[in-house]
Amino acid sequence: MINVGIIGATGYTGSELLRLLAPREDVCIKIVTSRKDAGTPVSAMFPNLRGFTDVAFSNPDSATLSACDVVFFATPHGVCMQEAPALIAAGVKVIDLSADFRLKDTAVFEQWYKLPHTAPELLQEAVYGLPEMGNREAIKQARIIGNPGCYPTFTQLALRPLIMQDLIADDGIIADVKSGTSGAGRGAKVANLFSEVDGSFKAYGASGHRHEPEIQQEISQLAHKPLHITFVPHLVPMVRGIEATIYARLKAPQSDVLKAFNDCYRDEYFIDVMGENVCPETRSVRGSNFVRIGIHRSTDGKTVIISAVGDNLMKGAAGQAVQCMNLMMNCAEAEGLRQVALMP
Amino acid sequence: MINVGIIGATGYTGSELLRLLAPREDVCIKIVTSRKDAGTPVSAMFPNLRGFTDVAFSNPDSATLSACDVVFFATPHGVCMQEAPALIAAGVKVIDLSADFRLKDTAVFEQWYKLPHTAPELLQEAVYGLPEMGNREAIKQARIIGNPGCYPTFTQLALRPLIMQDLIADDGIIADVKSGTSGAGRGAKVANLFSEVDGSFKAYGASGHRHEPEIQQEISQLAHKPLHITFVPHLVPMVRGIEATIYARLKAPQSDVLKAFNDCYRDEYFIDVMGENVCPETRSVRGSNFVRIGIHRSTDGKTVIISAVGDNLMKGAAGQAVQCMNLMMNCAEAEGLRQVALMP
Amino acid sequence: MINVGIIGATGYTGSELLRLLAPREDVCIKIVTSRKDAGTPVSAMFPNLRGFTDVAFSNPDSATLSACDVVFFATPHGVCMQEAPALIAAGVKVIDLSADFRLKDTAVFEQWYKLPHTAPELLQEAVYGLPEMGNREAIKQARIIGNPGCYPTFTQLALRPLIMQDLIADDGIIADVKSGTSGAGRGAKVANLFSEVDGSFKAYGASGHRHEPEIQQEISQLAHKPLHITFVPHLVPMVRGIEATIYARLKAPQSDVLKAFNDCYRDEYFIDVMGENVCPETRSVRGSNFVRIGIHRSTDGKTVIISAVGDNLMKGAAGQAVQCMNLMMNCAEAEGLRQVALMP
Amino acid sequence: MINVGIIGATGYTGSELLRLLAPREDVCIKIVTSRKDAGTPVSAMFPNLRGFTDVAFSNPDSATLSACDVVFFATPHGVCMQEAPALIAAGVKVIDLSADFRLKDTAVFEQWYKLPHTAPELLQEAVYGLPEMGNREAIKQARIIGNPGCYPTFTQLALRPLIMQDLIADDGIIADVKSGTSGAGRGAKVANLFSEVDGSFKAYGASGHRHEPEIQQEISQLAHKPLHITFVPHLVPMVRGIEATIYARLKAPQSDVLKAFNDCYRDEYFIDVMGENVCPETRSVRGSNFVRIGIHRSTDGKTVIISAVGDNLMKGAAGQAVQCMNLMMNCAEAEGLRQVALMP
Repeated sequence: MINVGIIGATGYTGSELLRLLAPREDVCIKIVTSRKDAGTPVSAMFPNLRGFTDVAFSNPDSATLSACDVVFFATPHGVCMQEAPALIAAGVKVIDLSADFRLKDTAVFEQWYKLPHTAPELLQEAVYGLPEMGNREAIKQARIIGNPGCYPTFTQLALRPLIMQDLIADDGIIADVKSGTSGAGRGAKVANLFSEVDGSFKAYGASGHRHEPEIQQEISQLAHKPLHITFVPHLVPMVRGIEATIYARLKAPQSDVLKAFNDCYRDEYFIDVMGENVCPETRSVRGSNFVRIGIHRSTDGKTVIISAVGDNLMKGAAGQAVQCMNLMMNCAEAEGLRQVALMP
Repeated sequence: MINVGIIGATGYTGSELLRLLAPREDVCIKIVTSRKDAGTPVSAMFPNLRGFTDVAFSNPDSATLSACDVVFFATPHGVCMQEAPALIAAGVKVIDLSADFRLKDTAVFEQWYKLPHTAPELLQEAVYGLPEMGNREAIKQARIIGNPGCYPTFTQLALRPLIMQDLIADDGIIADVKSGTSGAGRGAKVANLFSEVDGSFKAYGASGHRHEPEIQQEISQLAHKPLHITFVPHLVPMVRGIEATIYARLKAPQSDVLKAFNDCYRDEYFIDVMGENVCPETRSVRGSNFVRIGIHRSTDGKTVIISAVGDNLMKGAAGQAVQCMNLMMNCAEAEGLRQVALMP
Repeated sequence: MINVGIIGATGYTGSELLRLLAPREDVCIKIVTSRKDAGTPVSAMFPNLRGFTDVAFSNPDSATLSACDVVFFATPHGVCMQEAPALIAAGVKVIDLSADFRLKDTAVFEQWYKLPHTAPELLQEAVYGLPEMGNREAIKQARIIGNPGCYPTFTQLALRPLIMQDLIADDGIIADVKSGTSGAGRGAKVANLFSEVDGSFKAYGASGHRHEPEIQQEISQLAHKPLHITFVPHLVPMVRGIEATIYARLKAPQSDVLKAFNDCYRDEYFIDVMGENVCPETRSVRGSNFVRIGIHRSTDGKTVIISAVGDNLMKGAAGQAVQCMNLMMNCAEAEGLRQVALMP
Repeated sequence: MINVGIIGATGYTGSELLRLLAPREDVCIKIVTSRKDAGTPVSAMFPNLRGFTDVAFSNPDSATLSACDVVFFATPHGVCMQEAPALIAAGVKVIDLSADFRLKDTAVFEQWYKLPHTAPELLQEAVYGLPEMGNREAIKQARIIGNPGCYPTFTQLALRPLIMQDLIADDGIIADVKSGTSGAGRGAKVANLFSEVDGSFKAYGASGHRHEPEIQQEISQLAHKPLHITFVPHLVPMVRGIEATIYARLKAPQSDVLKAFNDCYRDEYFIDVMGENVCPETRSVRGSNFVRIGIHRSTDGKTVIISAVGDNLMKGAAGQAVQCMNLMMNCAEAEGLRQVALMP
């Protein structure tokens, strides 16, 4: 039995963790914290959980948290770096779904998140929780995981085979990425009201977004040289799903891009390389942990175009985190993550 | 009084023409054709028109059509090129909302539309109906207008100032464009059902789309040299609106892009250059003929990013066509096109 | 020239007033108040207004407001009853879009709105601003208008002919009414987030809603006896539109319901009686001031079923208010309200 | 191992059956028929199934079908009554998701479905597949199941406790029911296009709908007397979900309605009686087989108002059918049906 705690589960990543973990017979949810909602059953806030769990929100309680095997942080940035060190010291494994343990360079972290980093040593130890990017063994051994951002997850998975096989030019890499609204969280903001979002589409953060340095850190490490990416996120009037369209110039027009993807992801359960000239739809992964990828080439043959889709709350957040937990706890990697996407 | 005919008004561009023209006191809709629906009042199919027009669909009638001042073709590709020559000969001005009179090179037309072109002389005479691309005077004099495609309209308007002032490199121009579903027409297709589209996002035609050669023709003419563009359309779960995100490498990082846009569009009523670091929303132009443009630069300063939004049925189709009609008929250019966008 | 002030225009009814009034050449918007946003151009908050008005939000200024011909209150409940008396005393006509001047019985007002009423005399004088309910002449002479609630508007219009011609039983009247999200306002609430609303439907306030006593007051007055109505509102995942399905038992199964509606609304420009066995769609009135009505009967012939649709921000709020202003200011009743609904 | 065949699985109920059955280790999908798509892998049409099944559509093959334990018909009306008799004769259990085996009176069937019934004896034998309506034991023994319509499922479940305990008057029962678009099927129809449905709401079939006689048959049988229901369906711009608001006059205002519901459904896993003054949301059951119910009373205390929600493709179609299969095949009733609803 894996004893689990969730810090800050009133948002969408937290409720998705509950959706994944509550039905599992090998997992026991010991504590779900929310100071504001202490005493409220989680199923009163998230009625889809009625019948699946009796747990109620509670105030954080160190003793209970320290007795967990794994604690997930589904908190705003800045919380986990304060609280993780004590948990780690108590022997708890920590999976942080916020950004606190993603960016290795604290200066970059502080530039984008406007917070000093208070746990720099732990940051160096933290493992970036994307098994398909070559981190599987490290995740298994990790004490603390920095769970990747939603946009970076799909952007990196779309780029990895191209970089691994050195197929693309270093400059001019573009990621035009589109997300559903759940990525913006469950906070009460005018800009995220149904009346503001429905029937409309927009780019945002086009002059610079926090996920850009995260992507650059990871792809540069992969390439063993600094790579710049131009990253523009967009907001789609839908709840779940991310589509990333990646453009990069091929070093050699005759490169076999499909083979590079197949070689890279042949053994990955969650990565579905659909083939060439295929455009995956986000609904084909809705509610599931899969990533589906289509491969294209520009009409002049010079540019490779990758379209990758995933569910931002699953492979882009909570599903990824559970996948990491499975690895850390020696479960089957896909345990509790074999949902068929909800379509239509 | 401008006497108007509309061929094939059972689709969205046709119904939008009716929405724009029915309330006008200086326009008389003489005939609206649909063989299948002959005898049905247009307001029975489009109840928003109840109280605004009594016209019914009818079979095409040459005499009535020939007596019109302007005839709009809101038909599938291949119809207008068959019927326009006789109307032109009868002194009628023709505005074609299909693709028949957009591509000057009949070989390119035939490659993408799989039809031989049957009116090649008229094609050479036809004027591309985008006044803000430098065609205003030609439109005023034209006998036949090839009304631009929806994607090309916004993509070209986003690129024009950059090309005119020679700010960007010739290669590596990318247009990642997203459209609402009304652009796919009112035909009964499974892929366009609500149950298939809602809550989902996808790229389509990523390996090549008919609007790419149209964009290339126009921007190459503007640049006086062949320019390639990598163009990927996407389908957004919303009815109206297009957002085009354009990426191009700046020749000189210090270029004043905003000034280029202001210089280019200062006198254009329908083009709203919103400024730098602004991301326009498609709802800000819903139901209106405006185009709103925001200007960005990549974090490394090398790439200019333009986000342009418009309503695909208005500036991208029927509004554009009415704007051309106004010019051809010597009306105020914005007559009947001053709607404030519907927001929220 | 009609000089107009708008108090509290940062919500959807206020922005809709701006959409309707800014383009009018016979209206001058003298002042738009919002303490929080003083100094911000209204077009910065509502970019659809770019090019149509240069007015900026300002602090309330008595001198400017007192110099207006008409002042609209698009404020939360409780504001207008505080501020209207002074404006009325200064000779300004007041149109209140909140609930302060709808319920004639202050005890009922206080029960449902949890506020004491501070202007009971003015309340008695106030005219209920629904011209088609027999109030047209009173509106023309009024100093202050209580603009009807959105649900009551369409529910009453669906019931009026049935009550006027005494066709239905007194008890068992049911209004099952569905609204788009803009009716819930532009306040930042979790329950109104896109991620909470999209793809879902629910009843709310089924055990009692503020609009029920308003409906009961008006239909009881019409019937010259107390009528109860069972009123259940529902939330539809769309931005604009209300559909009211009204059920009432016919006194005589052979009643000519259609004739009753035609007799009642023959001369009403904004009321479209579509006929029997017709189900109007809310999109057929989107962005317009029209109400469309279809008439049905249950399969056992005993129950009349009326389906009425309207745009909650137009005939249900701002359009209604402008219609009242037109009447009060001696303009054509439909001035600025002849928009064709946006469809699709 | 349960060997299963699915006839006509290119629609939404068929694909939902595949979503439920493909991952089950105790079920083997032997054959999925579609003449038009023979040879196409089902996962090519429904990419959410990629990785879960290799089965391809095939032509109907009697030998394979006859070797199945259970055959589901997800076909248009009229098919199953032709083909079921031979399968039954071969010892196959049949679950019909069309309307062929719902209405016991062939005259009523023919009136509403405009088809003569060709298997009247089998019709009399068929069991109505709604376990919670008292049919559980009959279902276990049945050779053929008439799977209930989506609207009737939720309407009946909302009425059952009221009728069983004789709480409501016989006349004046009203069901105002709202459905997502997947209930309209996957056929290519203009009226179901995204561009036609999104942002709009309407009643339809208000003068009479096929599901009304089905509801009347079942509730009359329950009451041991003829009951009429006024049933009006509405279309909601969402894909999945039904909300039924039921109105009935209480015989005694002091009746304990909540107790009636609790008594009735205490042991039903899939029925969640949420309590009084609660309004369930359809998203709380999205993708799950649960029904959630809230109980209300009108402000005058005379009318009981029940709001019930369910997923039309699950408890309203495929989930219900699998629940029946479980009962017939002696599996746990909830086997493969314990999904937590997808929220948000």
